[in-house]
Amino acid sequence: MNGVFSRDKVLTIDTMNPTVKNVEYAVRGPIVQRAMQIEKELREGVKKPFTEVIKANIGDAHAMGQQPITFFRQVLALCSYPELLNENMFPEDAKNRARRILQACGGGSVGAYSASQGIDCVRQDVARYIERRDGGVPCDPDNVYLTTGASDGIVTMLKLLVCGEGASRTGVMISIPQYPLYSAALAELGAVQVNYYLNEEKCWSMDLSELESSLAEARKHCNPKALCIINPGNPTGQVQSRQCIEGVIRFAAKERLFLMADEVYQDNVYAEGCQFHSFKKVLFELGPEYSDNVELASFHSTSKCYMGECGFRGGYMEVINMDAEVQAQLSKLVSVRLCPPVPGQALMDLVVNSPQPGEPSHITFMKERTATLSLLAEKAKLTEQILNTVPGITCNPVQGAMYSFPNISLPEKSIKEAKALGQAPDMFYCMKLLEETGICLVPGSGFGQKDGTYHFRMTILPPTDKLKILLAKVKEFHQKFTQQYS
Amino acid sequence: MNGVFSRDKVLTIDTMNPTVKNVEYAVRGPIVQRAMQIEKELREGVKKPFTEVIKANIGDAHAMGQQPITFFRQVLALCSYPELLNENMFPEDAKNRARRILQACGGGSVGAYSASQGIDCVRQDVARYIERRDGGVPCDPDNVYLTTGASDGIVTMLKLLVCGEGASRTGVMISIPQYPLYSAALAELGAVQVNYYLNEEKCWSMDLSELESSLAEARKHCNPKALCIINPGNPTGQVQSRQCIEGVIRFAAKERLFLMADEVYQDNVYAEGCQFHSFKKVLFELGPEYSDNVELASFHSTSKCYMGECGFRGGYMEVINMDAEVQAQLSKLVSVRLCPPVPGQALMDLVVNSPQPGEPSHITFMKERTATLSLLAEKAKLTEQILNTVPGITCNPVQGAMYSFPNISLPEKSIKEAKALGQAPDMFYCMKLLEETGICLVPGSGFGQKDGTYHFRMTILPPTDKLKILLAKVKEFHQKFTQQYS
Repeated sequence: MNGVFSRDKVLTIDTMNPTVKNVEYAVRGPIVQRAMQIEKELREGVKKPFTEVIKANIGDAHAMGQQPITFFRQVLALCSYPELLNENMFPEDAKNRARRILQACGGGSVGAYSASQGIDCVRQDVARYIERRDGGVPCDPDNVYLTTGASDGIVTMLKLLVCGEGASRTGVMISIPQYPLYSAALAELGAVQVNYYLNEEKCWSMDLSELESSLAEARKHCNPKALCIINPGNPTGQVQSRQCIEGVIRFAAKERLFLMADEVYQDNVYAEGCQFHSFKKVLFELGPEYSDNVELASFHSTSKCYMGECGFRGGYMEVINMDAEVQAQLSKLVSVRLCPPVPGQALMDLVVNSPQPGEPSHITFMKERTATLSLLAEKAKLTEQILNTVPGITCNPVQGAMYSFPNISLPEKSIKEAKALGQAPDMFYCMKLLEETGICLVPGSGFGQKDGTYHFRMTILPPTDKLKILLAKVKEFHQKFTQQYS
Repeated sequence: MNGVFSRDKVLTIDTMNPTVKNVEYAVRGPIVQRAMQIEKELREGVKKPFTEVIKANIGDAHAMGQQPITFFRQVLALCSYPELLNENMFPEDAKNRARRILQACGGGSVGAYSASQGIDCVRQDVARYIERRDGGVPCDPDNVYLTTGASDGIVTMLKLLVCGEGASRTGVMISIPQYPLYSAALAELGAVQVNYYLNEEKCWSMDLSELESSLAEARKHCNPKALCIINPGNPTGQVQSRQCIEGVIRFAAKERLFLMADEVYQDNVYAEGCQFHSFKKVLFELGPEYSDNVELASFHSTSKCYMGECGFRGGYMEVINMDAEVQAQLSKLVSVRLCPPVPGQALMDLVVNSPQPGEPSHITFMKERTATLSLLAEKAKLTEQILNTVPGITCNPVQGAMYSFPNISLPEKSIKEAKALGQAPDMFYCMKLLEETGICLVPGSGFGQKDGTYHFRMTILPPTDKLKILLAKVKEFHQKFTQQYS
């Protein structure tokens, strides 16, 4: 019998799916794992030069102390335990929203599966929200798919697009720096990641000439079929201008690229003169030769903006000008996972159908929403200002989203030392920062950056007092680090 | 300009991912789509020979009127809106569970992302539950991964396993009849589906000789690496004996197969003399030469059993004897999707950490749990008995899970007519049943079956009165259909 068992595992690093091995995801990578270890060490009484880890590695607003919107949570509690509808403690508009959602659920329970595409009335509410947002451009609820966060929608769309082998493999254009969900999904699907660089000198804007040369180069070795844009930008915090978006749409039309617009930060716009323009609205303003033809998928989520409800994994995507047969395949594909989480669908509904003037919850809702967005705007400004006082750190304005992505000058000696350790120089920097100060940031190399440049991504989410401590520590650390390696 | 636009779509049925096209998912396939259309027609006043559609196509208990467990929903409401902790309306044990879960969430909010593997204390509770269930066999919380329903865990495990091209492509053995998530996932991943047939004559048990011959045949053209078992069975409702499970484990050990045990119906056992045996427990009872070596992943969910909370998409998987490097890859892979829905994690926690004797909610909880499971047992019996009174229908005992999968004799003429329409004969039958009676079942061909045999899958979930109507209508229809095509 023994011979049978003295054997290797069936599933080993050598026999497993190689595309999975290629996946990387910096936002929860080695720095974050080390940060969690350090937190454990602190709890166990290990002495450190700091007493707490401050995490600015992930866009997780509630974890950083942001309070949920009262109205949303009231309706979710009512949906979870409908007996509460008989209590006097909830405002009528919250009860009405809950009743409407429950009525649309099988058996009146959020515990039933919904239709795979999402609850009908939620998709209708999403469609009306999009129409309001885009100044009346029509939206068909049949083109709206509720998702498990935006990530799920993005991966599903990429899955539809990807095919081919060798020189005919599908290429997908993504911005560099990028949000690593894109590179991870492309690696897993075996597609070709086609990089186009954002222009750091022009506040991370998109250059058409860069798009053109990146595409031309890619066409030599793959079949580029899609162009992804994140606006407002992650990790770079820019807000693209209307003119830029128009240029991108014309480029996609001319070059026959499927557009994927990641617009999860659509309410997170802080800088004076900046405004969110949805790709769909601009597409329709360009006239029917564009709006009847260019294929577009746009993604939104409950996780960001003023609500920050990441844990619920709510989201939607809208597809525009999708081929009818492909859309049938999309509908089939989403049915295999049965449905997105119903509490997340309910929350998405509340976001697109929030309290209206005259309703009992309107004033509180607006107060909470405005306070959260104002505070974020303040912290965006604070972050940019303080970072720019540090010699060797240059930070673009945080126009929107939740991140700054400053450029850091690293001394030659530190670069050499990092390379000797087999580490990216900014990983070396961030790891040292973590060990010495307890501050957890993500190195720029996890998002991609121009060769020879170094960055880190830092969220603006910590409470103001902690954010100030964090920025002061970064300043001090950077000066010390520069001195040490000069 | 016009030349640019008079063009085909970028993404068409010919240019899209071909593996997605191969995906099929009968549980939400054409029959169900037609059922939804018919419901719409009924609402619009179209005259039909029936007044409502009765759906027995999907294991969706709440949609069929099953009530949620009060305690679970109280805790979920408290987690959603923690202000309720200050009210006197909830029992102390519900409040304590909610406080414990909230304390484990970032910022004390279920709106924060959790760790990608799931909330620590929930994984600890899952581990203790597994230990109790398996009579003390140890479970390490680090081997527990919370998931977005069981489907998510199954697809993730398959994703790790699949690789290779041509004759070295990964093969995965699945039972026929099977739950079509498996075939859909394998199609999408480009793996080889290796069928082994359950023995209908012996109440859908597993034959070792069938496993052996299926494997031998598969080895001629692919590399079989894993063996999937669903126990209690979907769509076939059997409960595998301890002896059978032991045989399967010995087979997997000898043939070097990774075991995947889908055990989401572990509380759904109704038949006298039947008992649920977890693969893990049996593995450990076979001694260290098995328990130290055989690789196993086991899946559970909040969607089935007595809770039926499908909409929350909660679940977990436990991996046993997984290679450490592979497990690191698994942890990385799940991090890309950030985390499973936190309300679903909270619910999973309540399932594995339900009210204990002496706690205020214990009596009500046990009453609700027992009532639901007793009613299901009754309906399982009823379904089997009535179906077996129909000439031409033979139904195995519904020992567990939520389904019967009776064998139906179809007249030659109906088979010819179906084939002329390009339809599977049991699809033709089920579609006619739907159009004439409003009853929605899923044809056996959607799950796989022996050539020349025909079945349908029917859930036992409708309320007893509707279930009786449904069974009477099926009986009448089957007799009429047989007559019509004889």
